[in-house]
Amino acid sequence: MMDYPLSLQSFVTRAEQLFPTNPIVSRTADGLFRYTYREYAGRVRQLANALSRLGVAPGDRVGTLAWNHHRHLEAYLAIPAMGSVIHTVNLRLSPDHLTYIINHAEDKVILVDQSLLPLVAAIHDRLQTVSAVVVMGDNTPLPPTTFPILDYEALLAAESDAFSYPAIDERQPAGLCYTSATTGNPKGVLYSHRGIYLHSMSLGLADSAALSEQDVAMPVVPMFHANAWGMPFAAVWFGTPQVLPGPAPTPADLVDLMVGENVTLAAGVPTVWLGVLRELDARQSPPPPLRAILCGGSAAPRALIQAYEERYRIPFVHAYGMTETAPLASIARLKRAHRDLSPAEKLNVRALQGMAVPGMEIRVVGLNGDVAWDGQEMGEILMRGPWVADSYYHDDRSQEAFQDGWLHSGDIATINAEGYLRLVDRTKDLVKSGGEWISSVDLENMLMAHQAVFEACVVGLPHPRWDERPVAFVVPQDPAHPPAKADLLDSLRPHFAKWWIPDDVVFITEIPKTSVGKFLKRALREEYAEHLRGAT
Amino acid sequence: MMDYPLSLQSFVTRAEQLFPTNPIVSRTADGLFRYTYREYAGRVRQLANALSRLGVAPGDRVGTLAWNHHRHLEAYLAIPAMGSVIHTVNLRLSPDHLTYIINHAEDKVILVDQSLLPLVAAIHDRLQTVSAVVVMGDNTPLPPTTFPILDYEALLAAESDAFSYPAIDERQPAGLCYTSATTGNPKGVLYSHRGIYLHSMSLGLADSAALSEQDVAMPVVPMFHANAWGMPFAAVWFGTPQVLPGPAPTPADLVDLMVGENVTLAAGVPTVWLGVLRELDARQSPPPPLRAILCGGSAAPRALIQAYEERYRIPFVHAYGMTETAPLASIARLKRAHRDLSPAEKLNVRALQGMAVPGMEIRVVGLNGDVAWDGQEMGEILMRGPWVADSYYHDDRSQEAFQDGWLHSGDIATINAEGYLRLVDRTKDLVKSGGEWISSVDLENMLMAHQAVFEACVVGLPHPRWDERPVAFVVPQDPAHPPAKADLLDSLRPHFAKWWIPDDVVFITEIPKTSVGKFLKRALREEYAEHLRGAT
Repeated sequence: MMDYPLSLQSFVTRAEQLFPTNPIVSRTADGLFRYTYREYAGRVRQLANALSRLGVAPGDRVGTLAWNHHRHLEAYLAIPAMGSVIHTVNLRLSPDHLTYIINHAEDKVILVDQSLLPLVAAIHDRLQTVSAVVVMGDNTPLPPTTFPILDYEALLAAESDAFSYPAIDERQPAGLCYTSATTGNPKGVLYSHRGIYLHSMSLGLADSAALSEQDVAMPVVPMFHANAWGMPFAAVWFGTPQVLPGPAPTPADLVDLMVGENVTLAAGVPTVWLGVLRELDARQSPPPPLRAILCGGSAAPRALIQAYEERYRIPFVHAYGMTETAPLASIARLKRAHRDLSPAEKLNVRALQGMAVPGMEIRVVGLNGDVAWDGQEMGEILMRGPWVADSYYHDDRSQEAFQDGWLHSGDIATINAEGYLRLVDRTKDLVKSGGEWISSVDLENMLMAHQAVFEACVVGLPHPRWDERPVAFVVPQDPAHPPAKADLLDSLRPHFAKWWIPDDVVFITEIPKTSVGKFLKRALREEYAEHLRGAT
Repeated sequence: MMDYPLSLQSFVTRAEQLFPTNPIVSRTADGLFRYTYREYAGRVRQLANALSRLGVAPGDRVGTLAWNHHRHLEAYLAIPAMGSVIHTVNLRLSPDHLTYIINHAEDKVILVDQSLLPLVAAIHDRLQTVSAVVVMGDNTPLPPTTFPILDYEALLAAESDAFSYPAIDERQPAGLCYTSATTGNPKGVLYSHRGIYLHSMSLGLADSAALSEQDVAMPVVPMFHANAWGMPFAAVWFGTPQVLPGPAPTPADLVDLMVGENVTLAAGVPTVWLGVLRELDARQSPPPPLRAILCGGSAAPRALIQAYEERYRIPFVHAYGMTETAPLASIARLKRAHRDLSPAEKLNVRALQGMAVPGMEIRVVGLNGDVAWDGQEMGEILMRGPWVADSYYHDDRSQEAFQDGWLHSGDIATINAEGYLRLVDRTKDLVKSGGEWISSVDLENMLMAHQAVFEACVVGLPHPRWDERPVAFVVPQDPAHPPAKADLLDSLRPHFAKWWIPDDVVFITEIPKTSVGKFLKRALREEYAEHLRGAT
């Protein structure tokens, strides 16, 4: 058959030819910006011309430090289409890590939001390869800087909207994203054209996210985090209208956007949907016309799923993946075999991480090889497929995660007879108590189902006798009136073995989070390292 | 990213692991046969072992001469998974063409339905490479033959259901299908693992056929014709229940199956759906729970689409493709831009051949390059994409169809501003009258909308003055009371220029058809070559 490369170059062309009037809506500092795929496509080519003029050649990396907005979406397609590599920089990293990854990626140009320019200014004298900083402005005068900056709009205005694309090999890199490491500097994951192309197809499958031109898609998950789960790429290909929520959206901003723009499919991590749920509950106005919420990044509590489905009739679709899998690996859609289950039983299935999407192979491997598909035995999730990384970018720490052709995820799970994963914990977050494993995630989910609890996080703290013991950190719904500790622990007793019950409950005002909104358990472990030292 | 081959080997494994109890239903000579994907997968591996024992090695071709049934489906996946090539032989070919393609493909083994064994017997002494003939029996004693035959079930029964798959290169061939040529022997199209994998994904896209595990799929289009439009492959991958309609199904058989097995998606050519419509009209019982009929192979009359949608509320989805495109190329789904159209306007869109599915690039090229996207200018459809052939198999007639990296389809179409194709004719069936082009298809569709017409076919017959003139061949709804010729021609006059109106109407009892159910216009042109010789 034809030697036709699976590349991103055709994505913009298809949207422009077949869906020229479909809109892209972008929340900016001064209101909603709105244009069409026809205008978008012209600007993508102007950006490709502008970057070429700045000396960006095929293979070069271009960094972006930006929220989810239309200019970032232009960079998403322009940079790969010209044969270069878009490096989406996580704006929540520390200055040292920002410096490290920009230097490690050898970014030649940085595209940065005006509001984020201070992040670049703080490290600019340590950047070794960046020859130009392009500012995506917010209609206020650019601030003075100690280094030269260029204006994104001025650059585009000077360029033609015609661009001649170079030939692309489908295995050449299109994107680069760094993921945090347990210790040390972040590790880079390089995405090929082929990988993103196939991942985009997987998002469009009826048995997966079923992303379609009929949708209005809103990636809340940041575009600097695993390509916003690939949604921007796939949405451009399919011509799907997109709503990009811009800088630091609040739950109120998100609800306004979803209602105002008739969003049908939105994607984000559980903490986002916790906040949005509170906002919806407070408003008591009609909910947005979502056909589904796509939720991943960490396990969503069953109570959260239930609240959306029962209170607002919004299907809450749990998915699983990681930066190394581009990221979609599994999805918790119901099978026809589940059709006759009761609502409560269906909810139990939806609270799982789901089964492998077509194209992805998943195993769960314990100390004695593949675990039984019984929903009980714990093991590490292993994955392989055409959109899975095979190493970290220029990094000698690849060996542990990539072995024998499989990605070793570091996630502990069970898998049931239907092939549905249930995340139990991160390998490093399992509480190792007296030679047994305790799942911090199971305890957290049950605590978060308690009506007086807003968020809960369980970590293993050093214990003189049991090695580690679980301690619960809880943010109450009403900080002025926290529940009784004994009540909380009693609520766990019907569901867990006695030795799983945490040794203590600590009320805090906020759970520290990682740059992508996950619980930062390491911070709690360090701060409270001595908490159980006196115990027996 | 991982060098993970896009191969069919994972398809059966996924169905077996995730959907072991989903059914495959097969209509046989003595009733419905029914088993599950778990049983199916075991038999696929038994077949791979049996064929290996017969000396079939990776790269070898295995021919199938069979209707749509479960054993044929076993061959569909077993042969590619073992690295060999399934050659689906069109059972409607002439003995000479059967002999040609089996010898040309160098089939090593033939799997043949017991009812079709006479086709092999008639040519067996002319087959040069076939070392074994395996009969897929129908529970009656095998007939005596002058050559040795093997029993499919006996072969499988002797084998283990474990098979160790060889490594597959995604570009290696998995399937082979011959397509009829305008003149001379059929031409072979070779499908790679990669091509079928990606085509299967395209069938699952929400914006395409949206094939899903939630469906019950029934390919009426023969499995010896362009892989039954790829539906059997994709359905196995997605774990979709399948209903295979077996030998020579009548419209009544098809309705029985669709109603009895709750078929949600069925695929076939327009003549199939004409027959089924008659059957549905005659029964006046509740229609099957189809969520869509997928129709391709040739242009379906607007009246047929309307009848399904208005009388039975069954969406009738028009698609376009050819053997060389595996075959799905375009599909007539409505866009969001069509949402506010009237029902009649929507029907007009549905009657088109639709827009390119994601992954496929389509152009329409006339004498002066790409035609305007105005729905008026006629040109040839050119296509390219990852599931398009790049040549005919071992054939020096490839040059005309494959030029400059594009498949030249030989189909004449217009394309409108929304990117929707409208098939006008085959290059060879256009009526060339007085230096102008007349679309035989447009005239046929309008004639078939006439209530007294069952089928109509228009061909250009040699004319002493105008080179060619159109003549209509009509099968009346009621053969005993055909309509008046003048009435039929009058019904065309409001819609076409005067010189488009056929010179004559000929009533016949049946329109000759090709082996895949398309009008065999060549036969009419030959039989009636002298019909207009005396005209002026």
